[in-house]
Amino acid sequence: MKGGREARWRVREIRRIEYDLVSVADVFDPAEGALLSMGRAYGSRRFVVVDECVYHHHGARLRACFAECGIDAHIVVFPGGEASKTMDAWLGVLRELDTFPIHRRDEPIVAIGGGVLTDVVGFAASSYRRGIPHIKVPTTLMGYIDASVGIKAGINFNGHKNRIGSFEPPRRVLLDRSLLRTLPRRHLCNGVCEIVKLAVIKDAELFDLLEQFGAAGLETAFQGACGGEILDRAIFDMLEELAPNLYEDDLARKADFGHTFSYGLETRHAGRLLHGEAVLLDILASTVIAQQRGLLVRADANRILALVERLAMAPAIELLDAELMWKSLLDRTLHRNGLQRVPLPVAIGECLFVDDIAFAEIEVSIRILQDWKAAVHA
Amino acid sequence: MKGGREARWRVREIRRIEYDLVSVADVFDPAEGALLSMGRAYGSRRFVVVDECVYHHHGARLRACFAECGIDAHIVVFPGGEASKTMDAWLGVLRELDTFPIHRRDEPIVAIGGGVLTDVVGFAASSYRRGIPHIKVPTTLMGYIDASVGIKAGINFNGHKNRIGSFEPPRRVLLDRSLLRTLPRRHLCNGVCEIVKLAVIKDAELFDLLEQFGAAGLETAFQGACGGEILDRAIFDMLEELAPNLYEDDLARKADFGHTFSYGLETRHAGRLLHGEAVLLDILASTVIAQQRGLLVRADANRILALVERLAMAPAIELLDAELMWKSLLDRTLHRNGLQRVPLPVAIGECLFVDDIAFAEIEVSIRILQDWKAAVHA
Repeated sequence: MKGGREARWRVREIRRIEYDLVSVADVFDPAEGALLSMGRAYGSRRFVVVDECVYHHHGARLRACFAECGIDAHIVVFPGGEASKTMDAWLGVLRELDTFPIHRRDEPIVAIGGGVLTDVVGFAASSYRRGIPHIKVPTTLMGYIDASVGIKAGINFNGHKNRIGSFEPPRRVLLDRSLLRTLPRRHLCNGVCEIVKLAVIKDAELFDLLEQFGAAGLETAFQGACGGEILDRAIFDMLEELAPNLYEDDLARKADFGHTFSYGLETRHAGRLLHGEAVLLDILASTVIAQQRGLLVRADANRILALVERLAMAPAIELLDAELMWKSLLDRTLHRNGLQRVPLPVAIGECLFVDDIAFAEIEVSIRILQDWKAAVHA
Repeated sequence: MKGGREARWRVREIRRIEYDLVSVADVFDPAEGALLSMGRAYGSRRFVVVDECVYHHHGARLRACFAECGIDAHIVVFPGGEASKTMDAWLGVLRELDTFPIHRRDEPIVAIGGGVLTDVVGFAASSYRRGIPHIKVPTTLMGYIDASVGIKAGINFNGHKNRIGSFEPPRRVLLDRSLLRTLPRRHLCNGVCEIVKLAVIKDAELFDLLEQFGAAGLETAFQGACGGEILDRAIFDMLEELAPNLYEDDLARKADFGHTFSYGLETRHAGRLLHGEAVLLDILASTVIAQQRGLLVRADANRILALVERLAMAPAIELLDAELMWKSLLDRTLHRNGLQRVPLPVAIGECLFVDDIAFAEIEVSIRILQDWKAAVHA
């Protein structure tokens, strides 16, 4: 700030953002005390929001963990799934916070759940009293390698996904891989779609790993060494994209691969498609568009399709709809400040950005994918 | 970020916040083009939220200004006053944004109004698509020297003032002093309370200026040279407090003088007290508490009371209520993470922080202020 009796003042500040993602063997082990990270310990209090399925499996240990550490925990059980990503769910958390009530700085909210829960609770943390700290414990694969890694938080609004939200860095992310063990296969696949995204767009070695060990990973909920390598590599790749651009100052984001047409698809088919399932449809359409443009050789496009077959991900090709995908592209163009900025693969592990995808290209990609599906099922 | 196949990753970023407060002679002059700051110009669009009183006085010039600059402006007229600082008002702005729709980066929202309007619109800007830029044009004295200067934004919720909100730096603040000319005396006084706060707690020279020229400033809506000096000095002082602590990392804030007991008073008497009027009651109680503790000599306490008389600010002493003020202190203690951190004056222009104000001290201060009021009216 300078000034005095001048006609102009300047405000300048540097804000440091720093948080760790920490692997823990057992997040509910009171001896490890991971859940008490980043706040006052014995004799203090915690506001905990936990997914209802996670609570069903681990509720007793969760309560015992806080009790043994001498912490007064107020536990709110939260229903999972995209249907909970609402204004009402967010307001519900804020009202509960008012009844708690929380210290503003040294009693971090603990958010234990999937991407929807950590997004809603992260937004509550960012907006309650203009911001109170929170830590995230992802319990789905989507949360583990995607939603919990970055700082986006928010809710759906007015028929649009994530229309209201914030960038809210957590104080810490606790990664307990053993929590993935109780996930149904469909929810593991949901997370794998984001791993495929990273592999195609920026990491050929990760793609190789998925070809070799992806199917086994799905069988074992990624508990083994190869499964662990896939997850660690996915987190590393995701951070490599997110960390230098936490606030999306650069709107040309490789991590947006698979997130252009998917936006409209998952909004329209909210009860039918999980986020990753919509992303996979987008990945496939984008791959075919790239191949049709001559950006991606046929062999690489076929390798991507073959991986999807090998992992038995069964994309809902029948939901592809050119009008809907075109409208979704227009909305994303607004979101990306007037340019399409769509990442397209040019090889396995490499991409470029295009701004001129035409409606007809979407139509063609759908027909090709329909033929592919018919051939796979023949 | 570091890592790889390790058990721990660290995310680090430095975020630079920078914005200017710029004096403009006539914010609606298309030749000056101040309203088009910080975004694309000719051929672009703007989403403008304007206070209904301001629109009544300046609506035609506002429209003409954008039209002459070749800007397609979508103007939303917003009712002023604390009663508009609601969830519904915020949601209304967000829904209007959805119908606009806005580019995410280069079409800053223009917020023209008092502190309530810029707080609500600032929170909308911070939460819509996780943040779009905005510029602020304060049109009340409270906005001019207080609300628009910093980065706090928010709405009232669940019976609590500013319970939901964010820290959202504007891209620019446009200071057009001529807009103050149409303000009624009560609203000028409202802003003066915050100037008195700064003078008492940190700027003895500003206190001198208020003693000499404050009454004339109120008569002339601070249009003259001495009025301008008071305003510039208040902005300078406010920035000196806010700029190094934009995000309130330090919870012991001099700018919180007058903002401990006022919180409960203005919540209880929402239709009766303007923000500054509640702050003035708090300033008076805090002054008496400081004097009773022997922190502040009687002559200085009397000088503060005399200034309030000289400016004919007529504080509503009859609304002081020890129970209410004590509860307000307890709430602020939570907000300040467990300590009272109440700034008290130790001389004109100097203060310290205390953490041990007792209920009885509040009671005594009220009795003394009641006696003072009776004496003034005798």
